[in-house]
Amino acid sequence: MEIVFQPDGKRVRVDKGTTIMEAAVIAGIPLETVCGGKGICGKCKVRLIKGDSLGGDSKGGLVLACQTKIISDAVIEVPAGTRLLEQKILVGGMEKKIPLNPNVRKVYLKLAKPSLSDQKSDLSRITCALERKGIVLGNVSLDFIRQLPIKLRNSDFKVTVILIGNDLVGVEEGDTTDKKYGISFDIGTTTVVGYLVDLNTGKEMAVASRMNPQVVYGEDVVSRIDFAKTDEGLRELNDKIMQAVNEIIDEVSVCIENIYEVSIVGNTCMLHLFLNITPTNLALSPYVSVLKDPVNIKASELGVKVNEKANIHVLPTIAGFVGADTIGVLLASQLDEGDDIRLAIDIGTNVEIALGSKEKIIACSAAAGPAFEGAKIRHGMRAAPGAIHRVVISDGVVYGKTIDNAMARGITGSGLVDAIAEMLKNRIISNSGKISDDSEIHALYGDRLVHEGGEAAFLLARSITVTQGDIRELQLAKGAIYAGTNILMKDLGIKTSDIKEILLAGAFGTSLPKENAQVIGLIPDISLDLVKDIGNAAGVGSKMALISKNERLKAELLSKKVEYVELSGRKDFQDEFMDAMFFPHSNLDYFPNVARLIHSTSFR
Amino acid sequence: MEIVFQPDGKRVRVDKGTTIMEAAVIAGIPLETVCGGKGICGKCKVRLIKGDSLGGDSKGGLVLACQTKIISDAVIEVPAGTRLLEQKILVGGMEKKIPLNPNVRKVYLKLAKPSLSDQKSDLSRITCALERKGIVLGNVSLDFIRQLPIKLRNSDFKVTVILIGNDLVGVEEGDTTDKKYGISFDIGTTTVVGYLVDLNTGKEMAVASRMNPQVVYGEDVVSRIDFAKTDEGLRELNDKIMQAVNEIIDEVSVCIENIYEVSIVGNTCMLHLFLNITPTNLALSPYVSVLKDPVNIKASELGVKVNEKANIHVLPTIAGFVGADTIGVLLASQLDEGDDIRLAIDIGTNVEIALGSKEKIIACSAAAGPAFEGAKIRHGMRAAPGAIHRVVISDGVVYGKTIDNAMARGITGSGLVDAIAEMLKNRIISNSGKISDDSEIHALYGDRLVHEGGEAAFLLARSITVTQGDIRELQLAKGAIYAGTNILMKDLGIKTSDIKEILLAGAFGTSLPKENAQVIGLIPDISLDLVKDIGNAAGVGSKMALISKNERLKAELLSKKVEYVELSGRKDFQDEFMDAMFFPHSNLDYFPNVARLIHSTSFR
Repeated sequence: MEIVFQPDGKRVRVDKGTTIMEAAVIAGIPLETVCGGKGICGKCKVRLIKGDSLGGDSKGGLVLACQTKIISDAVIEVPAGTRLLEQKILVGGMEKKIPLNPNVRKVYLKLAKPSLSDQKSDLSRITCALERKGIVLGNVSLDFIRQLPIKLRNSDFKVTVILIGNDLVGVEEGDTTDKKYGISFDIGTTTVVGYLVDLNTGKEMAVASRMNPQVVYGEDVVSRIDFAKTDEGLRELNDKIMQAVNEIIDEVSVCIENIYEVSIVGNTCMLHLFLNITPTNLALSPYVSVLKDPVNIKASELGVKVNEKANIHVLPTIAGFVGADTIGVLLASQLDEGDDIRLAIDIGTNVEIALGSKEKIIACSAAAGPAFEGAKIRHGMRAAPGAIHRVVISDGVVYGKTIDNAMARGITGSGLVDAIAEMLKNRIISNSGKISDDSEIHALYGDRLVHEGGEAAFLLARSITVTQGDIRELQLAKGAIYAGTNILMKDLGIKTSDIKEILLAGAFGTSLPKENAQVIGLIPDISLDLVKDIGNAAGVGSKMALISKNERLKAELLSKKVEYVELSGRKDFQDEFMDAMFFPHSNLDYFPNVARLIHSTSFR
Repeated sequence: MEIVFQPDGKRVRVDKGTTIMEAAVIAGIPLETVCGGKGICGKCKVRLIKGDSLGGDSKGGLVLACQTKIISDAVIEVPAGTRLLEQKILVGGMEKKIPLNPNVRKVYLKLAKPSLSDQKSDLSRITCALERKGIVLGNVSLDFIRQLPIKLRNSDFKVTVILIGNDLVGVEEGDTTDKKYGISFDIGTTTVVGYLVDLNTGKEMAVASRMNPQVVYGEDVVSRIDFAKTDEGLRELNDKIMQAVNEIIDEVSVCIENIYEVSIVGNTCMLHLFLNITPTNLALSPYVSVLKDPVNIKASELGVKVNEKANIHVLPTIAGFVGADTIGVLLASQLDEGDDIRLAIDIGTNVEIALGSKEKIIACSAAAGPAFEGAKIRHGMRAAPGAIHRVVISDGVVYGKTIDNAMARGITGSGLVDAIAEMLKNRIISNSGKISDDSEIHALYGDRLVHEGGEAAFLLARSITVTQGDIRELQLAKGAIYAGTNILMKDLGIKTSDIKEILLAGAFGTSLPKENAQVIGLIPDISLDLVKDIGNAAGVGSKMALISKNERLKAELLSKKVEYVELSGRKDFQDEFMDAMFFPHSNLDYFPNVARLIHSTSFR
């Protein structure tokens, strides 16, 4: 059966007996509801223009979408007032609209005072008033009950109640509905970012970030897992991340009491550490996580310093090494929408790769190591003043750019990709990655072809070199990503030309020189127009889940729907990986040289 | 439509489209279900012998009761295996059967170990196994998740999980399903009683009681409320009751870790104090409670020393002075079942009265004061050695009994009722309660008619008298009860002869001399065969709610269904009360004298 929603013109196919409400969700037109589809609140009125239905009494042609089942092809008009308010979200410069439908509600109640003929208990007075508004209640916290008699009488029975989901968690005197905030977090292995969001408007009010203070216990996930193998180690790492989270909360918020919900994304290990759950088994074959489902837990139970009744919502994960950060990327990129097959790569300390469309999404984790972040690279460094981040080599001259144009101090991941790609184009290294001993090359670059620490190296500027070892590290890293991508393509039964878009997420993804990434074979060769960076998409996804229950539901569906491909269990992965370590292009002429695009100075 | 359940032969009338499961509940034949009526577990199979149905595929004549809707008169056979196990409960010597269906479940799981081809998270491994058993899960506690990876691996993936309601709260290594206990409490103003119950069998294993240590802050509810008006006072009373509860738990239980649920009844004020909720407004017109609904809360949050994840279930109340103890009495007495109108009176420090049948129940609270417990009575005392508890006066001789036949030290409430009734029969007091100055009486009882503390008194034994003031106190107390009963009868539109049974609950109710209670006009004059004592029915009700979710549901329905009559708001109550203080019977001949039934000795 086909249903057309007007004035959008969106068409969906559904089974006979589907409610209009369900069909609207499938069509991506979320409708207003207060009562959650119980037919009480009357907010989901739509007009059945054509077609047959069952249930849902018609009044003036309007029916309740939640109560009306469609039993034939139909045309339905959704009045503007029935649509959920939408909030625009920017993802890599593109605007996406999502329904503003936070899990936190504040309701102002002006209540009748008790009398001998109205002896309702204080709590019943509240619950009856909410029921009259069509709000179906879940649990009521004891703390709420304890505060109730005093707050009701202090405020002359005019109070604002706070609902998280359907649970009554708090009561405030008078009308405080305008003060309703949340914070969304992206907990990375290296960096922690928090965004303060006004839940009444969905707007971002402030942002703050910190280095993850766990970094001192090891730069990568595996060393953190190792440190957390004792109870004390686990507690220490948990304390550290909680401290960073609370510092960020302090920095972004004026009144922590008005923060009622916090959403969290991060890789699976970071989430385990945040929740004080041992990550030990993530590092041992068969790499099993303790938890995959979303978690909702009281702020006070975890030690997050916001309103103590606030809900901490940890997004679900996909697998031990494909975490809630990937779920965030999928939400932000809406990879599951549309017919086109798209590839999303989130390059951080760990790399997660997802490929698919609305039909199917598969994902894997590539153990790329921290080479892109400067670790294990002789002169590697993070993006800081003096870091070489762009390199062009042309006709024997090396051009480059450092951050803030400061004196060169080291090289970033992007700089390394550029440098190695340019060395490849100029035959300074071979397709196998070996630094050339060809006499012609030596004639041209003589004093740049040096030795450092007993190995061949290429001098970029001052004393900053790219060593043979650095090249091998990059080959391992990019090989892991490319091999992972190839396995996913193989499993989905597609070829490179079937990929309609490549989305690069994460700080490194954003700064990656796209053409040179193709030159070295880090990402598949599709038209550069189709390679987009989408910034901190994981963080955007976290924010989307904070302001919209619809997105939270979608996250849960994605967590179940996305098929995880475990590379370590695959016999074909080693082959792919060996192949992918080589530089794939012998004819590099077809890559237009990007040199002229950079305002670079020649390096010495 | 009529449905007959066989082999019970029970008939119920239900609406067209009612499921067999629902009809069975109405018929009082609860059926097995694991999945909660989702059609998954297949436990609720019944045989449709006659009649038409919709849904619920028939296999060998068997259908799932939860999925099958009845659309005509029908005959249904319930196989023995489909019935919920029942537990016999004794209420005042009568045996009642209730379904054994505790809110706590323990499930032993032998799980497959993870592998590269089965990387389910630890939690999913558990939830999938439970789902295969048809168990639909609610929340999962973070503590459960934190313990899971260690306990799974310690036990070779053989664990017992603990569910409270649908929530996963605990995990234990190996098979511990045989260790599943609960404790039910009756928190009285004066006495606290706790019963340890094996939740696998429904059997009572141990019982212990304590005086409510709050007694030192005042004997009655009003003085406790007064003490609790400051935060510190409230906290102190809460500490005291928690201490008594924990002492009782220590006394009855071997291993507190295996106690997973605690049920609580008590009057509304006691429940407020137990939950650390201010009871202040209970004492101020319009006498509003903070809370009427049942409460479920984690033991650790309240400070109850059982398994910290245990659920504390506080039964619902009816009104500010008709509490969960009355709900307990109603559960135990099953006042809401059957066509006969019955009267239940729970005589404690407060007196609650309920009257009705399955059609309708109304209830009120009578401010009888503590006279029956010996307070405000010159020689009043509790039931302890030397307390006079039976009195007979005949032909100028006073016969009596003391507890343990010890030397007379005082008089109990029962003794007082006896003494005053006997004085009335022998015209020592008049119908207005005045001690006689008739010369004939003085001739017969001369040296017993004394003065004490400046008022007339009647000497029972040794120096123990019943004073004119004592008689007035009793008149106030019994007058309040009788007036309350009369108001209820009036509101229900019935007369005394319509009452088919009087159920006396509470320690005093049990010891009350029934005939003499009618002589003084404490309870309505119906045949003594129909006056039954049902012991600590509130405590029995608490236990029923502990072992049966069905009873818990019924408690909630009763809390909504029972109509509360606020006597202080009634113009006609004062009239009734004035009338009821008089002794009603001028011709006492029709009360057969109970003297010969007692092996009494004449008092001096």
